Parts: sequence; structure tokens; C-alpha cells
Amino acid sequence: MKKNSIEQFKEERDKLNQIVMKYSGKNIKRFYSLDMAVYNEGKLSKKTKELIGLVSSLVLRCEDCVKYHLNQCFDEGVTNDELEEALAIGLIIGGSIVIPEFRNAFSYWDELKEIK
Amino acid sequence: MKKNSIEQFKEERDKLNQIVMKYSGKNIKRFYSLDMAVYNEGKLSKKTKELIGLVSSLVLRCEDCVKYHLNQCFDEGVTNDELEEALAIGLIIGGSIVIPEFRNAFSYWDELKEIK
Amino acid sequence: MKKNSIEQFKEERDKLNQIVMKYSGKNIKRFYSLDMAVYNEGKLSKKTKELIGLVSSLVLRCEDCVKYHLNQCFDEGVTNDELEEALAIGLIIGGSIVIPEFRNAFSYWDELKEIK
Amino acid sequence: MKKNSIEQFKEERDKLNQIVMKYSGKNIKRFYSLDMAVYNEGKLSKKTKELIGLVSSLVLRCEDCVKYHLNQCFDEGVTNDELEEALAIGLIIGGSIVIPEFRNAFSYWDELKEIK
Amino acid sequence: MKKNSIEQFKEERDKLNQIVMKYSGKNIKRFYSLDMAVYNEGKLSKKTKELIGLVSSLVLRCEDCVKYHLNQCFDEGVTNDELEEALAIGLIIGGSIVIPEFRNAFSYWDELKEIK
Amino acid sequence: MKKNSIEQFKEERDKLNQIVMKYSGKNIKRFYSLDMAVYNEGKLSKKTKELIGLVSSLVLRCEDCVKYHLNQCFDEGVTNDELEEALAIGLIIGGSIVIPEFRNAFSYWDELKEIK
Repeated sequence: MKKNSIEQFKEERDKLNQIVMKYSGKNIKRFYSLDMAVYNEGKLSKKTKELIGLVSSLVLRCEDCVKYHLNQCFDEGVTNDELEEALAIGLIIGGSIVIPEFRNAFSYWDELKEIK
Repeated sequence: MKKNSIEQFKEERDKLNQIVMKYSGKNIKRFYSLDMAVYNEGKLSKKTKELIGLVSSLVLRCEDCVKYHLNQCFDEGVTNDELEEALAIGLIIGGSIVIPEFRNAFSYWDELKEIK
Repeated sequence: MKKNSIEQFKEERDKLNQIVMKYSGKNIKRFYSLDMAVYNEGKLSKKTKELIGLVSSLVLRCEDCVKYHLNQCFDEGVTNDELEEALAIGLIIGGSIVIPEFRNAFSYWDELKEIK
Repeated sequence: MKKNSIEQFKEERDKLNQIVMKYSGKNIKRFYSLDMAVYNEGKLSKKTKELIGLVSSLVLRCEDCVKYHLNQCFDEGVTNDELEEALAIGLIIGGSIVIPEFRNAFSYWDELKEIK
Repeated sequence: MKKNSIEQFKEERDKLNQIVMKYSGKNIKRFYSLDMAVYNEGKLSKKTKELIGLVSSLVLRCEDCVKYHLNQCFDEGVTNDELEEALAIGLIIGGSIVIPEFRNAFSYWDELKEIK
Repeated sequence: MKKNSIEQFKEERDKLNQIVMKYSGKNIKRFYSLDMAVYNEGKLSKKTKELIGLVSSLVLRCEDCVKYHLNQCFDEGVTNDELEEALAIGLIIGGSIVIPEFRNAFSYWDELKEIK
């Protein structure tokens, strides 16, 4: 059941991206490709970049963006303690208004840890 | 089934507005009326105004507001290409953080096109 | 049925907070405790503080935060008229973009009044 | 010199509002009048309403709005302790990102107290 | 003197963009080019696109972005009445919190009209 | 002269923090101390944490916060290339609306590099 929550997120995301691509012209496609490129391994590690993306998404309170970067962080081997430290920064920067997304982040992470 | 998604949005919206009106005094009612008035045909066409409302709603990441203006844009005869150009501006202004609402916008538009 | 909507909110919130606490270190716990402390009765009444928290949550468009403070306002004896005046301020400050949360606020309040 | 800082704010604000009025049609004028009306004494006191306006302005990080409501709070007899409690709520809700406006708020308040 | 205010904005902007380019790699340059491309004449006119950019910038309260799009709107022949209608939409969507940028917008427009 | 720009930022910041402390009670002081604590070296390096703080500040468009974290990043030995990669992520996440702060960030960094 928990597995579905994560797979469901990815499937829904893919389905919607296909609809976007059906309507998109060159500019939107270029933005999508740029959005992939900035997280590539470089002078900063992919792991550091995903943590940056995660906390930025938290302070901007974007639930889908947080989930996306949690998946990436998980794949990059981020530990529970590293995650906690990163999200704590987001909580202090963003304040109590981010608590709902902050809670969802740990809940989603908890599911990721149980499944994989 | 898809029809329900759009009708459901309008019905839910109406139901909630009735609850608002039950509690509202003069000031809230004046704001609601002002919120209608600014989109009326004027020196700028209603279509242009609805596109402005749509992209502003996208960059502020308000799902309900985006859906509302998509309905209005549809009624004003906005084409797929015009919509794509408008939403592309919103994507570049608002960045990847707006992608979840950007996806929902195209998905809702896709339903509107299929039904009507 | 309506009762469930309010109890459901509280149960979900508690469940998620438990997951947060499972992962949290000292800093997150200190923030949570601080987040309680600032609403305590002081030179300003708890009621005034909860109204401040409510409207701030509305203008920042945080649905869960609005519901939380509506529960607190209800417990502090806020009347319908007081609530309407407070939310009207939030509507004027935040503009039409807050209308979806504004509607949800009155709907949730309406349930609170019916149940208790 | 400090006196100038507060008077300067008011003069600049008046000058700019005159330019706005030169271009404004009915809708903008109606909004301006509504923006006055919601802070009028009602079931909630003007003082409570100004505190709500102040903290909402702080969490939205609007320097001019904060200064405007600080002037109003000062005129309503808000004390240092009441102000501190209100701004502390804003700090916890909005997080460290509001600290620059938080600092400016106390600095402006400090000037108000010295002058008047 | 007023002339300086507009030229000063453009010069400062150019100077800073040169510093950005000194440090920028491919991704940043691609974003800058995309940021130009989305406002090009297409199915929607450049004028409509600039009005969309203007109001989106207003509701997001970005002073520099508002000024930039005001310059573009001016060059596209936007009239006072069209501008007023567009900014009124932004005021209603964004609420009183946008008033400081709203005032600055009209003031900057006023200078543009006097000079050119 | 350029030296002044950076020292001026620090001096102004210190002066304002002293005014804050003059009025602050326990809760505000606890938040300030928490705001220091979350950036301490831990499982994540201080450098990674400061980069997270920097990009979060950029996407939230807080000029003072960006400058503060740029100073910290500089002290942690962040290179030009690392900075560029981090800020590019912020640009893609936050969109063109962050460009004014993005420009200021590189300009401030440029001054830091010249002085030290």
C-alpha cells in the first residue's frame, strides 16, 4: 500500500508531463531540459545539488517539488541525519508556515525508507 | 467522467461561495464585486485580461485561480497556441517551482478541449 | 460526517507530527516548542494572538495553518462577526489570490459551529 | 534627523498616492477605500486590527506596509511589550527570511518612540 | 533629472548583467536567452505578452521587473488607460500588499510619459 | 570604496540587531540562537549548509539574506564555479523573478573576491 504512494506520485507526474509535452513548443521544452541540466554532477556533487533543490522547494512550500527531490536525495544516498539537518535549515528559514510541507516531507521519506 | 472534473470544480466553488456569503459583511461583498469588475471588457479586451489573470495565478501558484481563469479563457476563445505562449511566460517568470500548477493547467485545459 | 472532517484534520496532524519527531533532533524540537510559546497569553491575549496567526496564515495561503488557528480561535470564543472582520483584513491584504483559502476558512468555521 | 525618517516616509507615500490617483479609474479608487474600511473600529478594536495588519505585512515582507502599520499601532497606543509579542509571532510564522524586515520594524519603532 | 531615473535604471541593469555574464556558464546563459524568447511576437502580440509580464511582476512584487516591463509596454504603445486596467487587475489579485510596487509603477510610468 | 559596501552591510546589520535585542524577550532570542545553530558543522558540512541557505534566500528573494550567506560561503572557501552552479539552481527554481537578486548576488560576490 505504501509502495503505491510513491509509485503513484511518479505515475501521475509522468502522465501530466505527457499532456504538457502534447501542447508544448520549443521554449517550454528548453526550460524542461534546463531544469534537468542544473542538477547534473559538476563542481558541486549531485547530492549537494539535490539537497539545495529540496530545501528551496520546502521554503517555497511546493509539495510535489519536495517529493521529487526526496526521491533524488534517496537515490543519492542521503542519510536520515543529513536529511534532518537539511530540512531543519528549511524550517528555520521558512518558519512555521512551512510545517505542513515539512511534515509531508518526513512522512514521504519514511515511506521511501520502508519500501526500498 | 472528465466532464465531472470541470463541473465538480464549479459546483464546489459555488457551494463554498454560498458559505462565504452567509458570513460576509459589506466589505467582503464589495471586494467580490470588484474582483468581477476588473476583468470586464474595457480598453483591454476581456480575453487579454483573462490571460493576465491566468498567468498571474500561475506564478502565484494558485490551482483554483488557474482553473477559474482557464474556464474564462476557454469561453473567450483562446486557442491552444495562445495558451501555450501565455503559460510559457508564466513558467519562465515563476521558474520550476510553478511546474506542478503548470502541469495541472495543461491537464485541465486538455479536459476542457475534450468536453466542449 | 462533518465531525469527521475536523477530527480527521487533528488525527492526521498528530500522526504526521509523530513521524517528524521520530526523525527530529534538538533544533527541530526547539522550534516546535517556540512555535507553541509565542501564542501563550501575555501582554496580548491568546485570542488576539490566534487572530494574528489566523490572518497571517491566510495571507500566506497555508490551508493547514488556517485550520489550526480556526480551531484555536473557536476555543478562545471568537464570534462570527470577529472572525469575519479578521478574515476581511486578510482578503484585502492578500487579494483575490487568497480566495480559495478564504472560502475554505469559512467552510471549516461553518463546520466547527455546527458540531460544537 | 530621526524625525525626518518618519515624516519622509509619510511625505513620499502621499506624493506617490497622488500620482496613482492621477491615473486611477473607479476600480482602483474603490480598492483604496476598501483598504481603509477594513481597519475601522468594529467588533474587533482598531488596535487589534492594526496588529493583524502589522504581522501580516511582516510575514509577507513588505517594508512600507510594516512602517504604515507601525505608525497606526503607535497611534493606537500599542506598548513595547505588545509590539514585541506581535512581531515574535511574525518571526516564528515567517522564519529567518523575515529578519531583515523584522530588524527594520524595531528600528522604525525605536525612532517613533524617541520622537513622539 | 527625471531622465536620469530611467536611464539610471537601464545603466545599472546593464552593468550588473555584465558581472553576471563574467561568472556565468552555459545554463545561466540559456536561461537568459529563454527569458528573451518568450516575449517575442507570436500568436499573442508582444504588447499582450509584456502586459502579462508586467502584471505577473506586480503581483510577485518585483520592483525591477515591473520597471523593465513598463519600459517594454511603453515601447509597445500601451496607453494610460490600458496600463491602468492592467495594473488594476494586479492590485485586485495581489491585494494591498502590492500597493508599494503599484505606486512605484505609476510613478515610473509618469516619468516615462514626461520624458519621451 | 568597494570595501565599504561589504563592511557597511555588516555594520548596518549589527546596529539593527542591537536595536532588536533592546526590545526582545526570550522567544525572539531563542529564535536567533536557533538560526545560528542550524548552520553548524554536522553530518552535512558548514559549506553545504551555507550553500543551502544561500539558494533558499535567493529563491525567496531576500537581498540581505543572500548577502549574509555569500559572506559565509566566501569564508567556507566556496569557489566561483561552485557558486555559479548553486545560483544557477536558484535561477531555474525561482525563475526570472529572482533575476534582480541574482544580479545583486554576483555583484556582491565580485566585490568579495576583489577585496579579500
